[in-house]
Amino acid sequence: MNVRKLTAAGALGTAGLLVAGPAFAGVDPETKFALDTFSFLMTGALVMWMAAGFAMLESGLVRTKNTASICLKNIALYAIAGICYYVVGYNLMYVGVDGGWIGHFSLFYDASPAELTLIGADQATPDMVAAVVGNGYAKMSDWFFQMVFVATAASIASGTMAERVKIWPFLVFVVILTAFIYPIQGSWVWGGGWLSEMGFSDFAGSTLVHSCGGWTALTGAIILGARKGKYGPDGRVNPMPGANLPLATLGTFILWLGWFGFNGGSQLALGSAADASNMAIVFANTNMAAAGGIVVAMLMTQLLYRKIDLTMALNGAIAGLVAITANPDVPTIWWAILIGGVGGLLTVLCVPLVDKLKIDDVVGAISAHLVPGIWGTFAVAFEDGNYKAQIVGILAIGVFVSVTSAIVWLALKYTVGIRVSAEEEELGLDRAELGMEAYPEFGLGSSRA
Amino acid sequence: MNVRKLTAAGALGTAGLLVAGPAFAGVDPETKFALDTFSFLMTGALVMWMAAGFAMLESGLVRTKNTASICLKNIALYAIAGICYYVVGYNLMYVGVDGGWIGHFSLFYDASPAELTLIGADQATPDMVAAVVGNGYAKMSDWFFQMVFVATAASIASGTMAERVKIWPFLVFVVILTAFIYPIQGSWVWGGGWLSEMGFSDFAGSTLVHSCGGWTALTGAIILGARKGKYGPDGRVNPMPGANLPLATLGTFILWLGWFGFNGGSQLALGSAADASNMAIVFANTNMAAAGGIVVAMLMTQLLYRKIDLTMALNGAIAGLVAITANPDVPTIWWAILIGGVGGLLTVLCVPLVDKLKIDDVVGAISAHLVPGIWGTFAVAFEDGNYKAQIVGILAIGVFVSVTSAIVWLALKYTVGIRVSAEEEELGLDRAELGMEAYPEFGLGSSRA
Amino acid sequence: MNVRKLTAAGALGTAGLLVAGPAFAGVDPETKFALDTFSFLMTGALVMWMAAGFAMLESGLVRTKNTASICLKNIALYAIAGICYYVVGYNLMYVGVDGGWIGHFSLFYDASPAELTLIGADQATPDMVAAVVGNGYAKMSDWFFQMVFVATAASIASGTMAERVKIWPFLVFVVILTAFIYPIQGSWVWGGGWLSEMGFSDFAGSTLVHSCGGWTALTGAIILGARKGKYGPDGRVNPMPGANLPLATLGTFILWLGWFGFNGGSQLALGSAADASNMAIVFANTNMAAAGGIVVAMLMTQLLYRKIDLTMALNGAIAGLVAITANPDVPTIWWAILIGGVGGLLTVLCVPLVDKLKIDDVVGAISAHLVPGIWGTFAVAFEDGNYKAQIVGILAIGVFVSVTSAIVWLALKYTVGIRVSAEEEELGLDRAELGMEAYPEFGLGSSRA
Repeated sequence: MNVRKLTAAGALGTAGLLVAGPAFAGVDPETKFALDTFSFLMTGALVMWMAAGFAMLESGLVRTKNTASICLKNIALYAIAGICYYVVGYNLMYVGVDGGWIGHFSLFYDASPAELTLIGADQATPDMVAAVVGNGYAKMSDWFFQMVFVATAASIASGTMAERVKIWPFLVFVVILTAFIYPIQGSWVWGGGWLSEMGFSDFAGSTLVHSCGGWTALTGAIILGARKGKYGPDGRVNPMPGANLPLATLGTFILWLGWFGFNGGSQLALGSAADASNMAIVFANTNMAAAGGIVVAMLMTQLLYRKIDLTMALNGAIAGLVAITANPDVPTIWWAILIGGVGGLLTVLCVPLVDKLKIDDVVGAISAHLVPGIWGTFAVAFEDGNYKAQIVGILAIGVFVSVTSAIVWLALKYTVGIRVSAEEEELGLDRAELGMEAYPEFGLGSSRA
Repeated sequence: MNVRKLTAAGALGTAGLLVAGPAFAGVDPETKFALDTFSFLMTGALVMWMAAGFAMLESGLVRTKNTASICLKNIALYAIAGICYYVVGYNLMYVGVDGGWIGHFSLFYDASPAELTLIGADQATPDMVAAVVGNGYAKMSDWFFQMVFVATAASIASGTMAERVKIWPFLVFVVILTAFIYPIQGSWVWGGGWLSEMGFSDFAGSTLVHSCGGWTALTGAIILGARKGKYGPDGRVNPMPGANLPLATLGTFILWLGWFGFNGGSQLALGSAADASNMAIVFANTNMAAAGGIVVAMLMTQLLYRKIDLTMALNGAIAGLVAITANPDVPTIWWAILIGGVGGLLTVLCVPLVDKLKIDDVVGAISAHLVPGIWGTFAVAFEDGNYKAQIVGILAIGVFVSVTSAIVWLALKYTVGIRVSAEEEELGLDRAELGMEAYPEFGLGSSRA
Repeated sequence: MNVRKLTAAGALGTAGLLVAGPAFAGVDPETKFALDTFSFLMTGALVMWMAAGFAMLESGLVRTKNTASICLKNIALYAIAGICYYVVGYNLMYVGVDGGWIGHFSLFYDASPAELTLIGADQATPDMVAAVVGNGYAKMSDWFFQMVFVATAASIASGTMAERVKIWPFLVFVVILTAFIYPIQGSWVWGGGWLSEMGFSDFAGSTLVHSCGGWTALTGAIILGARKGKYGPDGRVNPMPGANLPLATLGTFILWLGWFGFNGGSQLALGSAADASNMAIVFANTNMAAAGGIVVAMLMTQLLYRKIDLTMALNGAIAGLVAITANPDVPTIWWAILIGGVGGLLTVLCVPLVDKLKIDDVVGAISAHLVPGIWGTFAVAFEDGNYKAQIVGILAIGVFVSVTSAIVWLALKYTVGIRVSAEEEELGLDRAELGMEAYPEFGLGSSRA
């Protein structure tokens, strides 16, 4: 059911068991089942940890008066994403897509009867074991791994739209995104839909996760409008610096760590020499693309501004990670450094550009997720030559996510409203919407207002 | 020796090797040994990480003047718990319980001679390997995994009793708890004692870890008394808000991540299709119970107070995790969401109730660990029907832990004293007991006193 | 190629596959390949996480005006270390050392042709699998694991030299350290060079990583000089307390968690009963050495100063971890507690001593890494009796690293300069070198200047 990767290398992931025979006779199928399952669980836990990374990054980059609110949004969206993906999302994405545009609309996704029978048996029979092992991995381990990805996509918009979006309407958007928008576009590729049949390749989600999240952020930021005072009447951009840079640094480190799970786990299997070797390449490349992104971002800000900008360096690392995500198993590390480095470069160039367009992206997510995601997805074609499929995929998903997101944001805007009042924005969302302060004892300075 | 789980599913964990034969012929025993050992080590490392989660959660929820002190208590108690569990605790809990009330009082628990022989051999013989593999997993991997659990139990009281308990007497209590109280009640169930024989079931410790810790917190808080000024003479509850909510959020995310190890590793084995499948179910359910807890807590605080309370939402997630811990392998995720959701509901209802009783629980641990732990343990009976065993277990452990804790707290109170002076409390424990400040450069406001 | 450990136990790590036959027939070689590879990847990810630990520890222990700068240095050095180790470092350390003093000077280290062939094959043949499995583990998994170690070594100096070293010269030093100095001394032992032939033993790098980093820190601190005002003309030491102790605590917990990967992964293999058993011993001992370090440090500061010093306790934990790193597979936990406890004792004694010598070590890294690293390396001889090899190794690496570091620091000092101006130091590196503030909204007090 899960044809999440369609590159030659990726096909090993799910096909390993099927081609067992002389070539793969080495690894016993039940052992491979345990290895592949454990790989999903451990790497999935690392991806879950990225939710904390986004929470810390965004907590560090907003102003103090909106910090508790962004914490709440991040932990709440992670919870909601899981529920929605369980209720309808997974089935829409992975069940019965068959080359088409959408999976089945059916409720819930749970362990198989064969698994429950085996688990509940006092004495397992070979037939019981075979019925479970035939699936390749435990059903819930795959579900868990896929679920943490939808949460990642949902995390991206929260940072961009921070400091003025209302909590509940934002969470309603998260419901639609994680139950419908993300799963539908995901089904086109990882579910075995039309884009995968065309040969579009996106190993771990440069487009399917990061650009998807980036498009929702861009659409949302445009419809929501900029923070009060961000753009002066004379075109001046007023900096509103992040309040707690060690937290932002911590968040970036968390994301970097989690990305080993994000990309490495997307090998989808561990229990063969080919899978394990490719997973190792993915880990190394993932790390080095981030390294490339941060070094380029540091050099660029030094050259352009004569100072190294820490937040730009952090975004450079993230951009490098996003860029390599479409193709983290390139055969040499140099190539990974280059792909990540270009990602870092694009981020440094895009941040002022986005500001020039008066699109107020509080944490730089459009520049660090959307643009490097497009770049990384396009760069796959340098290797496989299928430029058409990559471009069609980037555009199709961009249009679909942007249009559907815009419809949802506009519907929310003209019904319940998506923006707090000017007074609430001035006061800060923490006091306005939560009735509390993130740092109640700290004497906060003039830039706070 | 370790019969930590007695449910039908759980029995797979330790019985897998024993029933090897046709059914489980697939996984070679030495491979299974490596898998089960590695599972203990990786999931144990995640549980160790929960110590950091408690430290950050509590650092974020106390006032700045007591922050360094709570950091110290948390890292110190983790260290002490390990030492005490090594010296006597593990043996009391797991060696020679045989349906009784306590294990052997013997010192130290180390690698087996068979393991040391194999490790030291220049050339391993099949007999050497068999002698080690026969145990099912490396002895120290099991010890490590069990040890991080006792540390978790010890972490719970520190938050409740923060801001007024003296450091050294608190650490003396930790010694008694981790060397004796926790291991003895643990022996009744996971050591194969009388409660396990009765059919009491607690997969990963809703009662044995979280309610146990909760009972010590409750007893301690009553004997210690409330913070000065917390409860006004007119019955008014004075809020003393946490000083650093991003840290509290980080702590909750850490706990959530660590809980995958806590519950998932409690499968106690990985190397069979049944174990791997059940571990996957546990991961998914653990995540979704937390999601249920947080969503219910958010909705409840919105309904009751017209604002979403971030700290309540965080406690809701924790309550959901605690509640599912007794039975994280329920067959459908919906059930897990419901169990966690009720946990979140109970927390929101209990926090004001505990305050009404003038029991001063600084971080809400009684509401987030004790009460949901009872609920989750009771809810096991909905599945297995053994209401009597569950109720007897909840009560027996509650009485034993409360009475023994009370004796220790009272003995400390009437000898060395357990509470700092009123002046020291006013000044803050950081300056009074450590001679330092957690945030020495930050201008701290009026709520600090 | 990788003979990273030469103790009897360690030899299992790489020799396991070679001695396969009757003794180890149990574990299929391809399964072992997957297990050993996955072990490198998971434990390597934990070691990468230590980079975040250093960043948080140091962020918490510097003053607010230098916080963003130390964040930047830490994430940048991690990125640079990886690039340099890829370009030349790994080859210098592991390729063609053959009992000598240095490996090959050759560029880049990537996946093998055999791996790429297998990964790219539509249908793997037994020959393809055998060609890959014969290496024992995926090449990139080993590279990844070794790479995160060089980053650890580079992290140590940043804390010691904080608050006055210029960013770019510091990063140039990191280039030399990670491309040349660390790999050359590493080749002497783990690369199979002259020290390993003499019988010098350092399981996971008490000397090769922690003392190496410590020597660079010591040399750098002497050449750089103390912070303005740290040492009064009358010999008085002016305390400059860390600005954010919860962050420092978090950093210590992160390091502690990461150390399970650092020491546990250094078993270099998982897929045999001997390897798995020894890895479990390593996990348990690593934890308990830290526990010993922290308890001794707490008791010592209570005895010496009548107060428990949180930062000293944190350094005690780190010192315990460093001390056990040379020999984390001692057969009993008591021994590990003792080795770690002495490490904690040494730290408490060394911190004032270093100050007396007017060597300004901002975070105490010399006392927590260099000195316990020497102690732990020496203590190996209590077990294996080879005092000569241990002493020669400690001295040889100490001299080599100190001399080469001094040359680099002096060359930088007399060309581009390594220290910011007095005005910039007064202003803080964040504003001087980055043009930003770590906590722009927080009203910062008088100790800030």
